[in-house]
Amino acid sequence: MPRLYLDRNAASPLHPEALAAMMPFLKDSFGNPQSLHRDGQIVLEAVDGARESVARLIGAAADEIVFTASGSEANNLALKGLALAARAKGTHVVVSAVEHPSVLNAARSLEKIGFTTSVVPVDGRGRVDPGAVARALTPKTTIVSVMLANAEVGTIEPVAEIAAACRARNILVHTDAVAAVGSIPVDVAALGVDALSLSGPTFYGPKGAAALFLKKGTRALPLVDGGIQEAGRRAGTENVPAIVGLGRAAEIARARLAERAVREAALRDRLIEGVLGSYDHVVLTGDRERRLPYQASFCIAFVEGESLLLSLDMKGIAVASGSACSSKSLKASHVLLAMGLDHALAQGSLVFSLLESTTAEEIETVIAAFGPIIERLRKMSPTYTEFLKEKRS
Amino acid sequence: MPRLYLDRNAASPLHPEALAAMMPFLKDSFGNPQSLHRDGQIVLEAVDGARESVARLIGAAADEIVFTASGSEANNLALKGLALAARAKGTHVVVSAVEHPSVLNAARSLEKIGFTTSVVPVDGRGRVDPGAVARALTPKTTIVSVMLANAEVGTIEPVAEIAAACRARNILVHTDAVAAVGSIPVDVAALGVDALSLSGPTFYGPKGAAALFLKKGTRALPLVDGGIQEAGRRAGTENVPAIVGLGRAAEIARARLAERAVREAALRDRLIEGVLGSYDHVVLTGDRERRLPYQASFCIAFVEGESLLLSLDMKGIAVASGSACSSKSLKASHVLLAMGLDHALAQGSLVFSLLESTTAEEIETVIAAFGPIIERLRKMSPTYTEFLKEKRS
Repeated sequence: MPRLYLDRNAASPLHPEALAAMMPFLKDSFGNPQSLHRDGQIVLEAVDGARESVARLIGAAADEIVFTASGSEANNLALKGLALAARAKGTHVVVSAVEHPSVLNAARSLEKIGFTTSVVPVDGRGRVDPGAVARALTPKTTIVSVMLANAEVGTIEPVAEIAAACRARNILVHTDAVAAVGSIPVDVAALGVDALSLSGPTFYGPKGAAALFLKKGTRALPLVDGGIQEAGRRAGTENVPAIVGLGRAAEIARARLAERAVREAALRDRLIEGVLGSYDHVVLTGDRERRLPYQASFCIAFVEGESLLLSLDMKGIAVASGSACSSKSLKASHVLLAMGLDHALAQGSLVFSLLESTTAEEIETVIAAFGPIIERLRKMSPTYTEFLKEKRS
Repeated sequence: MPRLYLDRNAASPLHPEALAAMMPFLKDSFGNPQSLHRDGQIVLEAVDGARESVARLIGAAADEIVFTASGSEANNLALKGLALAARAKGTHVVVSAVEHPSVLNAARSLEKIGFTTSVVPVDGRGRVDPGAVARALTPKTTIVSVMLANAEVGTIEPVAEIAAACRARNILVHTDAVAAVGSIPVDVAALGVDALSLSGPTFYGPKGAAALFLKKGTRALPLVDGGIQEAGRRAGTENVPAIVGLGRAAEIARARLAERAVREAALRDRLIEGVLGSYDHVVLTGDRERRLPYQASFCIAFVEGESLLLSLDMKGIAVASGSACSSKSLKASHVLLAMGLDHALAQGSLVFSLLESTTAEEIETVIAAFGPIIERLRKMSPTYTEFLKEKRS
């Protein structure tokens, strides 16, 4: 039985064309882009080409792209780098409650060295209120970080509105666009942000390849000090094959964005309909309308997301329960709790993220598998037994 | 004409067996090791296996290995991570004058947030005096960082002696072993260090794969905050293919270390002899005896290292002048200046670093090419003309 993989948030397969682009740099063209000789110059050209491709995908200039090894690193470079560079101006940082752990924990690290953080709440659909962000700003605020889309609940955030309010007060805005770039149109000028994180593995690029957009003139202290790579913004020998693969994935994403989104959204809608229809005690999490096209997430009463995940896994279906970066901590998702879901329901979280290659048949397979698994799991659930008892009495 | 590549310091070719080990993880096994489903668990096993292999190469335990994206990142994590974690104890850091820019600049970043740094000098061969390190220690010193071997001048440093003195005073020791691991025997217990950096591309592993050894119980604050990857010491999705490639390269290095070193040292010695014999005004840099087996470096009077490098490049020979991480800054090497070479001579730096595949014929080709190039360049050199005039008068 072939595996049915619906966990693109955790990792997407590397696009064969991206791998093909990488191969020469895993073989003969192994030079260091910083070398002055020909073996170095050849790979430097490839890195520069990839930088152009990544920039083009988000409407940026090539020299505004800083390659990093992960979306988490890009988020850390944004939060810490911008906050530390602007330290003389102020030491207050604003983030939303549904940010990725790499943003939230970077903010916590800043607190240890004298910064203060405000965490802006979200509504029941996971939406950040731009008004709430505006109210959180103080004369000491130097940076606001609100994600463009939340991988766990699919909600797309009103970043452009938030950025407009911040720009008026001369406050820098970063957005974690890891779940969005490559799947929905993203333009840094339209968003009006100063920094934006993106990551290859969410859109068929290689692991180890991510980037931070840093608007021209925006100062950020490096996380990794050392050589002059990335114009002094991130030292360390460039991961040439991964960067080249990211460049190719960006070109492919740019060409196919609209087509992918339409197709995925149709499959997503059928999945949502099928799952909601197959069981009474299931709710969609996140915003129904302003939603990532490839994402469908639910909370299921009386069952644990992890049990459900493992049961689906045994049927050959790979899905997530929460984010990959916190999946093993077994805590209820901070995103769902911030949305006001009760703790028990938040434990029943299930996240589907579709691939470009996902078929309508696969979606039907998942829907068909879902009902019986739920049926079996809830029979074993003490909370469900209790619920039935109460209902009868 | 095939290229003759003698710049392993900048980047070594990826070993074909390492690439072969990586391929499944660039294709079908694309999962995220943090995922609970089978697609994640398969790659987690591979990452754990690579962790064992890397640990074994340096006599460490698997859970003492933190994967990073570069040697520079490992050095930054060591310097900043250890210093920040020990901040309550003291804020003084000791480094040597010949450290890699990633160590020196990480120390400078620490200075910006209230730390002080002592830079220990070296002798004319680039050797750090353990006595000088001991004298630099203060009651506020929490970490000492001295590299195991210097890529630019080949000198192997007396790290075990330095570490012994520090251990007696309860001070942590980090060593940047990027130029050493995979080429000379390295054992963390024999060295007595608390942290050690290594990097794949110096020993036929992939770019994007490096590691920091952190002795059990050694606390280091992460550079990249976020998820629970690397036991909370470095967040971000693991670069699985690169990690697997690093593991395989470590296994190969462990099996062939002695054989490689003997062979390379013989070629190195012939290269040193040939270059020194071909021109009067050339000196070997670094320690003649305590030297990396694959490294031969020189300073050549009256010519610029960069011109020499480009002339050799035109003959199809790739070498370095200084380190790849500062090659484009066109400043005289801080390593050579710390060794007391005068500024003009330091500009004539040339660094050969041999590959496992380097042949005796290639070495003779380089020696034969060297004399005529020097002859031509020095004819154009105003300083040489002046020197001749003075000699005649």
